[in-house]
Amino acid sequence: MIYLDYAASTPVSEESLHVFQQLSKECYGNASSLHDAGGRANEILAYSRQSLAAILGGEPDGIYFTSGGTESNILAIQSIINGLPPHKQHVITTSVEHPSVHHAVNALQRLGVKVTVIEPNQEGIITKEILKQALLPETGLVSIQHANSETGIIQPLAELATLLKERDILFHTDAVQTFGKMHVSIKELGVDALSISSHKVYAPKGAGAVYMGAHVPWKPIYQDTVQENGLRPGTVNVPCIGAFVAASEQIMLKIDQQQQLDIQLRDYFLQQLKKRKLSVRMLQESDQRRTLPHIIGCFFEGFEGQYVMLACNRHGICISTGSACASGYHHPSPAVKALHVSDRDALQFIRLSFGRGSSKDDIDQLLHTFESLQKEKKGA
Amino acid sequence: MIYLDYAASTPVSEESLHVFQQLSKECYGNASSLHDAGGRANEILAYSRQSLAAILGGEPDGIYFTSGGTESNILAIQSIINGLPPHKQHVITTSVEHPSVHHAVNALQRLGVKVTVIEPNQEGIITKEILKQALLPETGLVSIQHANSETGIIQPLAELATLLKERDILFHTDAVQTFGKMHVSIKELGVDALSISSHKVYAPKGAGAVYMGAHVPWKPIYQDTVQENGLRPGTVNVPCIGAFVAASEQIMLKIDQQQQLDIQLRDYFLQQLKKRKLSVRMLQESDQRRTLPHIIGCFFEGFEGQYVMLACNRHGICISTGSACASGYHHPSPAVKALHVSDRDALQFIRLSFGRGSSKDDIDQLLHTFESLQKEKKGA
Repeated sequence: MIYLDYAASTPVSEESLHVFQQLSKECYGNASSLHDAGGRANEILAYSRQSLAAILGGEPDGIYFTSGGTESNILAIQSIINGLPPHKQHVITTSVEHPSVHHAVNALQRLGVKVTVIEPNQEGIITKEILKQALLPETGLVSIQHANSETGIIQPLAELATLLKERDILFHTDAVQTFGKMHVSIKELGVDALSISSHKVYAPKGAGAVYMGAHVPWKPIYQDTVQENGLRPGTVNVPCIGAFVAASEQIMLKIDQQQQLDIQLRDYFLQQLKKRKLSVRMLQESDQRRTLPHIIGCFFEGFEGQYVMLACNRHGICISTGSACASGYHHPSPAVKALHVSDRDALQFIRLSFGRGSSKDDIDQLLHTFESLQKEKKGA
Repeated sequence: MIYLDYAASTPVSEESLHVFQQLSKECYGNASSLHDAGGRANEILAYSRQSLAAILGGEPDGIYFTSGGTESNILAIQSIINGLPPHKQHVITTSVEHPSVHHAVNALQRLGVKVTVIEPNQEGIITKEILKQALLPETGLVSIQHANSETGIIQPLAELATLLKERDILFHTDAVQTFGKMHVSIKELGVDALSISSHKVYAPKGAGAVYMGAHVPWKPIYQDTVQENGLRPGTVNVPCIGAFVAASEQIMLKIDQQQQLDIQLRDYFLQQLKKRKLSVRMLQESDQRRTLPHIIGCFFEGFEGQYVMLACNRHGICISTGSACASGYHHPSPAVKALHVSDRDALQFIRLSFGRGSSKDDIDQLLHTFESLQKEKKGA
């Protein structure tokens, strides 16, 4: 099988799986228990908080572990709004966020919180001007993704942050797709809160984290929660968290190398598309610097994305038609539509995403499948 | 280390860990992805649903996987209330539930749902009469635990269910402590919904399940959720779910044997307490049939529970002073207080809980520690 869907989920690294195994055997105590079995679990948690904080350039106390990226987004956004005063109950987010961000703000809206959903410009970017127009005196929180899972487009968070800081508005970002793929620094981004997930960085599924600076006045959704300083109730999944942090440490060691490899693979893909005269159009050819190099959004002209994905699957190649968390829905992706792509074109969208095991051979095989499809069509 | 805190968390069985490992390697695809990597993950999910439904005596479609027991309780209770009509927005629960049930109903109360918290009788039992008195024409849901994590007291759910069925009131139970320890049959209990957790049955932490019958009119908390038929958003943790189900299958094979062992260990403990003239008083000596045999709640007279727990810990023995999910709080446990125990006595409460690895030797060592404590005190 050729796996080109690393943005949906990554395989688990040997090292991370080993850590999971060891901790499952040695640290099975409940981290809330006050005996040594609980104490050992708690030591792993403390180490994990420190290490992850160091990677993100934050304080260990700012790390709150969760069960994954979706829960991180929901808990961060809801807990922050819960902690803001009545005159700051307006939240701004974008049309291109992960479904979990929409879950969070929709639930808040039903509770009476004012929600504004802004649209990026034609290049998929939320500019300072777009954000500025949506700001209200009562805006308390803005949540904008670091990069999009379907288009790979990176938002200029640092620029937006200065705008928000001046106005004392809190800034949350969903960094699930960027963490471990590019350098993510809380200080450099200027965000107050950030969400990440384990299974995008070669760790097992089942862990995630929220970072919230000490100045963020969040309040628990569930009062009297004892775990994770009140943010998330439930037994803390220490083995998975330990494996998550081990995988994060590991991915950071080779982050620049992997990024170079991703760029090489993307360039090779682009060059081969031309060489093989394939009618595959890139989503964004103009400004590659603003996208994650491992995510390639494109359109195979004349073919529905679903058809191409299934044809690739028959040839043993896994690609996708967009976010796995929205699959099953057949309407065009909001992130693709935001780029002023027609409905018809948006349904032709496919995404490939590279990772640790990806090679030129994988791309050659993918292109070979594309060639067969194109030939079939011409023959028909 | 002698571990006598299986009610807080169990070690992971070799078999379950092996399944986790294999699935992490072979089924890392996102179960929502439509290619074969996602398809394989989905097959594991389908098998897991079938197997767990068979164990519980329910339908596969009634199984919804979650990240654990806490999330199961919160999602079940909130989604059911969300699905009930405006004239059925009253929920009844008990003072002795797991914190997560209180989290769920407190959050509902803030949304305007009427909540009644009933108290068990002096023997810790919710009787038909107690429940009947709390029923209102608008009662839509009752949530009562199957057994208590601190006292081991089993509630007469089947009796209560007949009362509720006559009145068309839905019945949810938190079966986290009983699943895998005694036979739990949805039909025999007469419940409409039920919560269970992976890390109490020798599976890794990180999975749980809600069972809801097809007749239960629940509605998602987060609209447009695609995973788990809408109940829980977020990438489904297939490796952990597979490991959970493998561990559940395994525990069911020897459930009667383990229960016999638990009874023998409890009897031995009781007999030795007398023989060694230890001033340890059992929480419930009158009617042992109504408690889980692997959970022993008792009071070491003259010692705070916290002190005994720490003394045992110094001797390499892990016991607890109650639910791990409430540790850190120093007020007496509601489940213990419900048995008309004084505040002073309730603070003397300790819990031991047996499991797969427990032996008479473990108990001998525990009793030896108790003897030293008693001698010290007399000497002082």
